[in-house]
Amino acid sequence: MELNHTHDVCRRSWLEQANTPDCDFPLQNLPLCVFRRRGSAEVWRGGVAIGDQIVDLAALHQHACLQDLAAEAVAAAATTTLNALLDMGPNAWRALRHGLFALLQAGSTQERLVRETLVPQVDAEYTIAVHIGDYTDFYTSLDHAVNCCRQFGLEVSPNFDWLPIGYHGRVSSIGVSGQQIYRPMGQSRPDPAGAPVYGKCARLDYELEIGAVIGVGNARGTAIPLAQAQQHIFGLCLLNDWSARDIQTWEMQPLGPFLAKNFATTLSPWIVTLEALLPYRTSWTRAPERPQPLDYLRAAANGSHGAFDIQLEVSIQSASQAAQGRRPRPLTRTSFRHQYWTLGQMIAHHSMGGCNLRNGDLIGSGTVSGPTAAEAGALIELTRSGIQPVDIGDGEQRGFLEDGDTVIFRGWCDSAGYARIGFGTNFATVVPPLTA
Amino acid sequence: MELNHTHDVCRRSWLEQANTPDCDFPLQNLPLCVFRRRGSAEVWRGGVAIGDQIVDLAALHQHACLQDLAAEAVAAAATTTLNALLDMGPNAWRALRHGLFALLQAGSTQERLVRETLVPQVDAEYTIAVHIGDYTDFYTSLDHAVNCCRQFGLEVSPNFDWLPIGYHGRVSSIGVSGQQIYRPMGQSRPDPAGAPVYGKCARLDYELEIGAVIGVGNARGTAIPLAQAQQHIFGLCLLNDWSARDIQTWEMQPLGPFLAKNFATTLSPWIVTLEALLPYRTSWTRAPERPQPLDYLRAAANGSHGAFDIQLEVSIQSASQAAQGRRPRPLTRTSFRHQYWTLGQMIAHHSMGGCNLRNGDLIGSGTVSGPTAAEAGALIELTRSGIQPVDIGDGEQRGFLEDGDTVIFRGWCDSAGYARIGFGTNFATVVPPLTA
Repeated sequence: MELNHTHDVCRRSWLEQANTPDCDFPLQNLPLCVFRRRGSAEVWRGGVAIGDQIVDLAALHQHACLQDLAAEAVAAAATTTLNALLDMGPNAWRALRHGLFALLQAGSTQERLVRETLVPQVDAEYTIAVHIGDYTDFYTSLDHAVNCCRQFGLEVSPNFDWLPIGYHGRVSSIGVSGQQIYRPMGQSRPDPAGAPVYGKCARLDYELEIGAVIGVGNARGTAIPLAQAQQHIFGLCLLNDWSARDIQTWEMQPLGPFLAKNFATTLSPWIVTLEALLPYRTSWTRAPERPQPLDYLRAAANGSHGAFDIQLEVSIQSASQAAQGRRPRPLTRTSFRHQYWTLGQMIAHHSMGGCNLRNGDLIGSGTVSGPTAAEAGALIELTRSGIQPVDIGDGEQRGFLEDGDTVIFRGWCDSAGYARIGFGTNFATVVPPLTA
Repeated sequence: MELNHTHDVCRRSWLEQANTPDCDFPLQNLPLCVFRRRGSAEVWRGGVAIGDQIVDLAALHQHACLQDLAAEAVAAAATTTLNALLDMGPNAWRALRHGLFALLQAGSTQERLVRETLVPQVDAEYTIAVHIGDYTDFYTSLDHAVNCCRQFGLEVSPNFDWLPIGYHGRVSSIGVSGQQIYRPMGQSRPDPAGAPVYGKCARLDYELEIGAVIGVGNARGTAIPLAQAQQHIFGLCLLNDWSARDIQTWEMQPLGPFLAKNFATTLSPWIVTLEALLPYRTSWTRAPERPQPLDYLRAAANGSHGAFDIQLEVSIQSASQAAQGRRPRPLTRTSFRHQYWTLGQMIAHHSMGGCNLRNGDLIGSGTVSGPTAAEAGALIELTRSGIQPVDIGDGEQRGFLEDGDTVIFRGWCDSAGYARIGFGTNFATVVPPLTA
């Protein structure tokens, strides 16, 4: 994939709101969702963000504003999931982007028709945009690994340098931004010498992650080479990998996290396509003092590894801040560029043994933490397991999450010379258990 | 659920083959599958085993031999997956069983019509009978845990006594009996002091497991109490959790097995319903020297824990044995009754934190190994990691699996006073990697 006119920062939309400098969804972005009007019984259908509006792809399909492959792509995306669009492959995704770009650009002769398809984002509700067959979560930030291991007096495991460590996660409990997160009940062992106890999770945490949606899969028994891995990604979103630390500590030996993670995962509604992100590809290098990876995890050229510079921010809004309409202060500012392993390497490794990926599969990057303390992507790191509570604003402090807290992720790409490509927000609110 | 006339060993079918003593599929069993004629382009549809035949449920639906709830259940099962039937719940499953029992019993007035729906099993091919949303694999045999840990000089982890340890597995690579298993490529570290290497898995193994198919799920945030857990199970099958031991050893710290397991999982085609298995429920007790579990993992009455006495057998047929038509000798004979944790406990634990199960979800029991050496459910145990190769018959020995080996699982319940309830076979053949 190469840069083209859809990345030109000088192009503007006829929708003026999309041209404002801090808008997440300018003409150059065009992320996809599945939506309907909030509280309605409308059918779910694909949508594309432009400014503060959504282009209703079902309506656009009926208006027949696009031709050829772009028209086929709109038809595929006019339904309750985007899987049929994903299945069409990168040429169709590109045709849809370029077709929409032409329709939404200032001067388009079809502005009037397209305006009829717009739904304000404030009137919409969202659902997961794809049917997810499998969800894999990785653990690929060395800073996160070091921060976590240090607290338990452990070394980062020796395989961390050699492979992107991953494990399978729970699909059934994946939800979309805006959802409520029931604090899980669980087994933990507060007294390491005693018997475990049953009770409410006392150390509820978030994990700041990037989610990647697989667009094109591979057959069982075949591997996806690193050089081709990015072509298999449809797009990216923000992912909150909710984590119950007290449950995790007790259960995760020897087979990994289970109930500590499977009660909920939250995705942002918008999938930002890989083509929109092209200007924000970054080089990938491994510090010379660390081992260089095996051949299947090394690419010939920079930009081929699938590394991206995505700015990320986390804040927690307490129930009282929400009641008073106070905007919380950011706790974390970091970038996805710090990740030790790239998305391309995750996909190459995932498939190297013959495991088949399918369209709609979800990959979690693992917690994104940067090299400084303020760049940590989870409370367990920011607060040193709750020992050093963090100021969330308005005099409130948090060791771990309390009921009523809303965890808010924001993500965007921004650099001189290119349009801002925003991910929107991923937020969800912790509520008490139903079953306590 | 209580025993009833469908468990009466004296009842016979008009299909004489179903009345032979060692038949896996007598009138009292009636397991379900999804099938079509082998090599045809027919649509997949539900079927029920009787003797050496399959009752084609799509044909039965057209013949309208059943009434009321049983008729609705047949309609739901006449399609490409059984999920719609599962969604109808235990009353519908029971109505279908009792309706089919009446149709297939000697003396049925509808014998002629039902005969028209029969397809010989030798002419059929099978697919996975349900759409699986999530697959969870457990680790619940203490004998297996001890056998494995001992080889690495480790103790079984202290949480083993307190909770059924589980982790999420891969759905995309689940296949049905008869499939080919590509030996995975992978990263391993033969020299524990050296760098890892890329290559073919050198220690390929099977794991003998019971698979449980969830029939009725739970809402996110709610838990399934142990006393109700069995009502959520539609039925059981035989599951082979293929395992690449060399890859597993290197990758599994700290987040569990990943590529070592996700290249393939094989299911037997037949799902044996829980009602068919009722005579084989067993009591569950915990030896007094081991800790008693927390309340949510204890049931008031025996039989409520979800423990079953299922006989299990493993054999390996080499390529040369297959070419000469030689039947392999059994390597393992054990029973599912030895499992430290029951299926009911697995479900109660899985949902206790609010994780939602959905109909069609698959639960793997974890390797079933019994207390003696000949009851081990994996080669890593039988051969002590390949050090003591095992005789598979005809002078051949195995440390781990070789290309061309077919791994064959058989399972059945049998006791005086009740009909034999067979699971049929689960077999699959190891072939070289596609990508080496």
